[in-house]
Amino acid sequence: MKIVRFVYRGEPRYGLLNSDQIEVIHNLPFDEVDVTGVSVALSKVELLSPVDPSKIIAIGLNYRDHAKELDLEMPTEPCLFLKPTSSLIGSGNAIVYPEATGQVDFEAELVIVIRKAARCIKSEDAADYIFGYTCGNDVTARDIQKKDEQWTRAKGFDTFCPVGPHIETELDTSNIYVRSRLNGEIRQDGSTKEMVFDVFDLVSYISEVMTLYPGDIIFTGTPFGVGSMSPGDTIEVEIEGVGSLINKIEQ
Amino acid sequence: MKIVRFVYRGEPRYGLLNSDQIEVIHNLPFDEVDVTGVSVALSKVELLSPVDPSKIIAIGLNYRDHAKELDLEMPTEPCLFLKPTSSLIGSGNAIVYPEATGQVDFEAELVIVIRKAARCIKSEDAADYIFGYTCGNDVTARDIQKKDEQWTRAKGFDTFCPVGPHIETELDTSNIYVRSRLNGEIRQDGSTKEMVFDVFDLVSYISEVMTLYPGDIIFTGTPFGVGSMSPGDTIEVEIEGVGSLINKIEQ
Repeated sequence: MKIVRFVYRGEPRYGLLNSDQIEVIHNLPFDEVDVTGVSVALSKVELLSPVDPSKIIAIGLNYRDHAKELDLEMPTEPCLFLKPTSSLIGSGNAIVYPEATGQVDFEAELVIVIRKAARCIKSEDAADYIFGYTCGNDVTARDIQKKDEQWTRAKGFDTFCPVGPHIETELDTSNIYVRSRLNGEIRQDGSTKEMVFDVFDLVSYISEVMTLYPGDIIFTGTPFGVGSMSPGDTIEVEIEGVGSLINKIEQ
Repeated sequence: MKIVRFVYRGEPRYGLLNSDQIEVIHNLPFDEVDVTGVSVALSKVELLSPVDPSKIIAIGLNYRDHAKELDLEMPTEPCLFLKPTSSLIGSGNAIVYPEATGQVDFEAELVIVIRKAARCIKSEDAADYIFGYTCGNDVTARDIQKKDEQWTRAKGFDTFCPVGPHIETELDTSNIYVRSRLNGEIRQDGSTKEMVFDVFDLVSYISEVMTLYPGDIIFTGTPFGVGSMSPGDTIEVEIEGVGSLINKIEQ
């Protein structure tokens, strides 16, 4: 299934996407996808971030090729950080370039969406706690990241968390490509098989620290090839079997 | 005014506290405190964290005496980090000692509660965006904080964010004491006049990065004298003009 979130009669609603039609869903989709019987054309609606999480967790360094690129040792444990929910935007929304920075980088990432409350879950049980996957861009003010001890400011500006366009609930994440294109040109082209910790290990590890709730999202790290963006640029994150998240950069 | 949050007929509700009686409030208190006419005795209810924030921001080092204690240079900009909302508990709830750590520290802090959406606010306008203040304990697994590059895990365990017992909307924060007592013995006894960045500067600085929403909370840093807790201990954070936040440590 492909799940979208969109504005319907002035309110955010979840929907089930079938080619170019959206079937409106009652309430939240995590427990059960219960359609209302009402459909709207995809072309007629404004898409939102496909989920409204209570928290956004991200992983610092999780691709072997990216670690090599940075000449860093392979991590022995996932490096967790948080992005504020106020930074979330959907596909098609603008990433706003803050005045405080001179270098804004893209980081294409596979994003996990949690299905049900998860606390101290084992890796082998984690699949049952995952609702699906979407594309994410862990936008980072690189100059500020280098200056600040903590990454909260560098990765927490409003609009620095594009996620979408929809959630794909059926996906084998063991070996799929994670790509970014800047103005149509491929800049990152990694595979999830390069991940140090896979999606199940990540859900397990994080759930040992903090309870994950339905709709919470996890950015799983970025592959080799991150780079900078300028106002006017268009950045696309494409994940095999999911789709493309596209955002423009604005001053 | 003193604002509490508590369980009323199975649902979390806000209330106005008058000595030992709570007047139940319609909806949220931030815009206007609109009482329903129904009162309940404080002794009859289970208090919750006095607010349900969309995000919890905290400041790394913000008291001159604490910076001296650690032999660190005075920061030139606030050091921001986030605590997950899943770590929030109220006064009277237990702080659960995680298996992953061998050192859990208390950090007594004045906590700001946001009144209305704040984006790029000047310090001199910040007072209008503050709803009130409460007590907070920025519980930290110190051994993990020293090991991890980012503080998310060390400060993000479930129950590591006690806040309460109520919000005080009338408070001059320029020179009030911020104390902690471990099993009744004073361990921290600082004054907000030692703050490097005052509450208005913090709201302004954070609002330049991320939009603050009604109910969002800001931990403003801890004074000299932090220390460790063990299962069975009781930790109290007392702030002059607000009250006392009290939590037991459990295994």
